[in-house]
Amino acid sequence: MYKPQKGEESVGERYDVAVIGTGPAGLSAAITLKIRNKSILLFGSKNLSEKVGKAHEINNYLGLPAIKGEDLANRFAEHLKQMEIDITEDAITSVYAMGEYYTVQTRTNEMYEATAVILATGVDFGKPYPGEEQFLGRGVSYCATCDAPLYKKKRVAIIGFSPKEEAEAEFMAEVAAEVYYIPVYKEPVSLGNQIQVVRDVPVSIEGEKKAERLLLKERELAVDGIFILRESVSPSRLVPGLSVEENHVAVNRRMETNLKGCFACGDIVGPPYQYIKSAGEGNVAALAAVSYLDQKKKEQKEKADQ
Amino acid sequence: MYKPQKGEESVGERYDVAVIGTGPAGLSAAITLKIRNKSILLFGSKNLSEKVGKAHEINNYLGLPAIKGEDLANRFAEHLKQMEIDITEDAITSVYAMGEYYTVQTRTNEMYEATAVILATGVDFGKPYPGEEQFLGRGVSYCATCDAPLYKKKRVAIIGFSPKEEAEAEFMAEVAAEVYYIPVYKEPVSLGNQIQVVRDVPVSIEGEKKAERLLLKERELAVDGIFILRESVSPSRLVPGLSVEENHVAVNRRMETNLKGCFACGDIVGPPYQYIKSAGEGNVAALAAVSYLDQKKKEQKEKADQ
Repeated sequence: MYKPQKGEESVGERYDVAVIGTGPAGLSAAITLKIRNKSILLFGSKNLSEKVGKAHEINNYLGLPAIKGEDLANRFAEHLKQMEIDITEDAITSVYAMGEYYTVQTRTNEMYEATAVILATGVDFGKPYPGEEQFLGRGVSYCATCDAPLYKKKRVAIIGFSPKEEAEAEFMAEVAAEVYYIPVYKEPVSLGNQIQVVRDVPVSIEGEKKAERLLLKERELAVDGIFILRESVSPSRLVPGLSVEENHVAVNRRMETNLKGCFACGDIVGPPYQYIKSAGEGNVAALAAVSYLDQKKKEQKEKADQ
Repeated sequence: MYKPQKGEESVGERYDVAVIGTGPAGLSAAITLKIRNKSILLFGSKNLSEKVGKAHEINNYLGLPAIKGEDLANRFAEHLKQMEIDITEDAITSVYAMGEYYTVQTRTNEMYEATAVILATGVDFGKPYPGEEQFLGRGVSYCATCDAPLYKKKRVAIIGFSPKEEAEAEFMAEVAAEVYYIPVYKEPVSLGNQIQVVRDVPVSIEGEKKAERLLLKERELAVDGIFILRESVSPSRLVPGLSVEENHVAVNRRMETNLKGCFACGDIVGPPYQYIKSAGEGNVAALAAVSYLDQKKKEQKEKADQ
């Protein structure tokens, strides 16, 4: 997996802020940034938050009493449309602090640059499997597209958390010698014959120096690589160096994390898990990011004037 | 001014939570508490927040794009109505921590009791006049109705911040010998002849052991009592013992103040001054209050079981 290094020359356009997540926190941050004339990248699903869309009825979103989740999601979408905010529909696998800016890496192996980052990916990342963090980068990966070349003619297991990961398995099968696909969902799986679908429950990852075995409840798979494809990656794995407390990103009341220029809001920073709380925090994070950008600009000007 | 003492026997009904303020923070707190089946008192204006109603257009309240302040206020009112939440239209002059509960005193000299309090009175309380805090309770008062009896046949100055304070002046004139009324607003004043309207700017309050003189820009008034009737009272004067930082109530991310069972949210806890931020914080404060009530109930049960 290509990993950008600090001090490396940047390529391409640099955005003001990358907002990661399209739940209420990310959307609220995006609209506030847009009002403040910042250039933004908004990463997430065009269907916005599945959690919002599936909610039966929401009663505590002030101003929109007794609203169905679907209607609230539609209102959010309409708000984005009116403000001409686009969504970049790509999952983020890594965010690297480069010093003066951040590099955001997507599952399709695109790289983006932004001066500030707002993390709003929610809490739906699940617990890591035993061995997962230990072998990350040594046989365990979150990005099939990025790391497939490393597994040419090798044996690979893919744990997919939603049917859309099946496309990743197909791609992997073009490269690897053997591909096991373990769906962690109930929907029927539709994959080519070159892929072995294993309906079993992942338990742990084992190995010596690198990952060598995926243990399932009923059997064991000897493999060279294990790809874990979740909806979103847990914050500490997403952003190396990010400070996490009790499984949530640690922030102050300005939604600042321990990394300068990196903000977090919504469910990712902890309970209560409520839409209006997330929307409020998104606004706060956005305005803190605006202050950060202003401060940075001022410093650069002073430096240039010297 | 009657001041309840710690340990004094409580009278009347005890509510779960008193929410003070009808801006987005207070309303959001109220609806969340109602959903959680708590008994609440919501204090403020039936016109809700004047600030919201007067806003030209609001673009960053997620889900309600490009909404006029008036329309947003109407939506808030509709939300309250649908949830059958009433507003007690009375200004709060003091909140006393009684140990196991809080006593809330209104300008009409009513007393209410609640186990928890949520402060959401906004930032529109202005700076105190020099001498104001020094002489509070010694010639300076915020409640004409409460303290009028102390000024029988004496000379009193009333500084009114809105036309609705004129009624207080009329009432005072029934008791005091001389009443000066200094309007701190532009609207015409309509008062009886027994009251002297002074169109001047208050500067400071002076005296030896107690307030004796109100200094105005153009003249000086020798008085026995000075009533300062603002829309809302600053937090530290409202709740004795409350911790304040840079003119804002100090809170943690759960919106807890330094006083157990006392929470704060919205503009009163500091910038950014944004509706969606306030609404989000109201929700957080309400859920923290719910936890506090649950914890208290558990403790009482344990005590009873012993």
